[in-house]
Amino acid sequence: MTRPLRVGIAGLGTVGASVIQILARRNEILTQRHGRSVQVTAISARDRTKDRGFDLSTYRWFDDPLALATSDEVDCVVELVGGSEGTAREIVETALTAGKHVVTANKALLAKHGLALARLAEQKGVALAFEASVAGGIPVIKTLREALPGNAISRLYGILNGTCNYILSRMEMEGLTFQECLKDAQRLGYAEADPTFDVEGFDTAHKLAILTSIAFETEIDAEAIYVEGISSITPLDLTMASELGFRIKLLGVAERNAMGIEQRVHPTMVPKSSAIAQVMGVTNAVTIDADAVKELTLIGPGAGGDPTASAVVADIADVVLGKAHHPFGCSVDRLERASRAPMQRHEGGYYIRLTVHDRPGVAAGVAMRMAEAEISLESILQKRSEKAASQDKHGRSGAPVPLVLITYAATESAIRSAVERISGDGLIAEPPQVIRIERE
Amino acid sequence: MTRPLRVGIAGLGTVGASVIQILARRNEILTQRHGRSVQVTAISARDRTKDRGFDLSTYRWFDDPLALATSDEVDCVVELVGGSEGTAREIVETALTAGKHVVTANKALLAKHGLALARLAEQKGVALAFEASVAGGIPVIKTLREALPGNAISRLYGILNGTCNYILSRMEMEGLTFQECLKDAQRLGYAEADPTFDVEGFDTAHKLAILTSIAFETEIDAEAIYVEGISSITPLDLTMASELGFRIKLLGVAERNAMGIEQRVHPTMVPKSSAIAQVMGVTNAVTIDADAVKELTLIGPGAGGDPTASAVVADIADVVLGKAHHPFGCSVDRLERASRAPMQRHEGGYYIRLTVHDRPGVAAGVAMRMAEAEISLESILQKRSEKAASQDKHGRSGAPVPLVLITYAATESAIRSAVERISGDGLIAEPPQVIRIERE
Repeated sequence: MTRPLRVGIAGLGTVGASVIQILARRNEILTQRHGRSVQVTAISARDRTKDRGFDLSTYRWFDDPLALATSDEVDCVVELVGGSEGTAREIVETALTAGKHVVTANKALLAKHGLALARLAEQKGVALAFEASVAGGIPVIKTLREALPGNAISRLYGILNGTCNYILSRMEMEGLTFQECLKDAQRLGYAEADPTFDVEGFDTAHKLAILTSIAFETEIDAEAIYVEGISSITPLDLTMASELGFRIKLLGVAERNAMGIEQRVHPTMVPKSSAIAQVMGVTNAVTIDADAVKELTLIGPGAGGDPTASAVVADIADVVLGKAHHPFGCSVDRLERASRAPMQRHEGGYYIRLTVHDRPGVAAGVAMRMAEAEISLESILQKRSEKAASQDKHGRSGAPVPLVLITYAATESAIRSAVERISGDGLIAEPPQVIRIERE
Repeated sequence: MTRPLRVGIAGLGTVGASVIQILARRNEILTQRHGRSVQVTAISARDRTKDRGFDLSTYRWFDDPLALATSDEVDCVVELVGGSEGTAREIVETALTAGKHVVTANKALLAKHGLALARLAEQKGVALAFEASVAGGIPVIKTLREALPGNAISRLYGILNGTCNYILSRMEMEGLTFQECLKDAQRLGYAEADPTFDVEGFDTAHKLAILTSIAFETEIDAEAIYVEGISSITPLDLTMASELGFRIKLLGVAERNAMGIEQRVHPTMVPKSSAIAQVMGVTNAVTIDADAVKELTLIGPGAGGDPTASAVVADIADVVLGKAHHPFGCSVDRLERASRAPMQRHEGGYYIRLTVHDRPGVAAGVAMRMAEAEISLESILQKRSEKAASQDKHGRSGAPVPLVLITYAATESAIRSAVERISGDGLIAEPPQVIRIERE
């Protein structure tokens, strides 16, 4: 039997602790299955004294994670420190340079430096594996990398941030505001004290950048992603969506079109009957559209110690089996530098909620501006304000009322220009809400 | 560059033709990605003259598939003939014996002879890969084999037969009978002229047997599976299910319990909110419950030329990469001969639809029998027959009416004995309908 794969773990939060426990629990089974055991030999974290629920004394402790990353007693470094710079980056670079395999859950690091790190790993002939960096326990990277070689992928889209999906699910089910749900998410530990990174879509963007690269064999290009968060979504939008047969999800979407690769993160209307619309709470999901397999959807826990550790352990097993060679599914040199399809040229259906003054000719004025921009309307929904105290003889109150338009496929620039003109016409009382529609 | 992997394909139906087209289309990409090209060198089918939409003349034609299976020009045999015996079995045995890798979509062969074939493959040091044998394009075998090494799996369940799901979906959505939907399924090519194999659950059982073996590291034991089909399901059952918050799906379920491995195929009530309940039409889905990842659901096309070929090509790519070593995820010798958990001891919730005579004391009599068998009822739903012409002063017509019981967890044997006693009491006018409930 080959000598054990010796693993050093840097970062001992819930994921790191769970990795240690899983490897202990599954040690015998994995050894028999793979013909080689995995042995955690070294650990490092900021605070040695913290009670983590298990005995640290059997592992060699490193105060300096960079010493762990170069230790002779470590073949594979598991980086669970987090962050795109500083310690995490140094650990990974140092470990790869020292010829160690690296397994990481660090999406920010991958999104920013993935290409350079993958090149380094390839030069050194070691693995750089990061299944846990996207969608927690869902094996979406393995699926993209290994399960679809016969497929040209045309689009992928996913719910990649549990915090946002939790907030949107509760807003929809309970009619609450964004702020109310955010507070609950923070109380339950689903959201950080500063929630910007999650709710404004940046976390989703990091994960999307990684998936895009693997799916389309392109260089990671996180900066090309159009990003819009969920903080502007109101209970009224969710009600309107429901009436129109949609749900609103924060999606990361990547697709190949005539102009290149389009990557975008924004609140999205998805048909209620779609698989992804059913995904509620902190659960994540990814749908892949490809020419041979048509449509594949993976649903599972997007975060949490055990599910994320499950992905880390799967990566470690692939290292044991010598299976984790090309970080992005093909050699880094083969990754194409894709043209960025500009968001202005995005084409799709749109939901536009205007808050209009309840006066004669407003709907006609709005419709005219849409027609001028050559935007066809699939439906128009006007809601009478229930609060309106007084009405004229036509039943109009003069108070602002919502007017919702659903468009057929139109370009982002056409929508933007039409909405701008409508604003300029003085027809609306509040900034307009624009939500893109994603069809199956 | 290594010399090409030379592939011989036996069986040129829609899947075989699609495999050839995909390999041609993706040849350059796969070669660059894997550092080794795949070349179809040999083909065999029953009818050489049939127009398959592409030029056969560039491949060496074998009238005898066994000659293809031993040809010096073939490294990997793709068996797409089908059937658990006869030609298909001979091709696979012959190819493995001759030291060729085998990729197959043949669930019947695997379910019956998988263990012996896997042993043969291991002895010869070649791959036996069969992703396409279960759930078409969904990479469920790769997921079970490679993505979950850190997990002890407790249960898996799936919609593994598109024909049945199509029929149940249409029955539910359109209020049609089983026979009406079956006819449409046959007309659309979703069901065979003799639909028994699909609608009575045998096809699902074959697929379940394969998944069970990989998930629980047990010897394949298709004969241990309790099998019940969907032909007894009525529109009334689907309506009742919907009113109670369920949908009815034909599921294959495998779980490990105190008595061993329980494997069963039967119409199942699943909560409407579950991921699997959303899966309509010919689509397949599998949910895996495991200790670390919690719950993972994969949804995709369960059949069809291109999706199935997608899985075949993924297996071929794994052969190219030398990744397909243990057919069942671990060496055959490690597969445990599992105790069969008897169906009589199955424990779960039940839906029982009785057609009772609309007389005083009937509900009480039914409830008494349930209590005698120590079965607790979660709900009772009695529907008045709308057809009843005359009623007595209490509004009873004397005509048979449905009485639906939903039980808390009870054993199969308790349910069976209670239902038998109720029948013996003369309380019911028609054979009872019993449908098991599967909770998330």
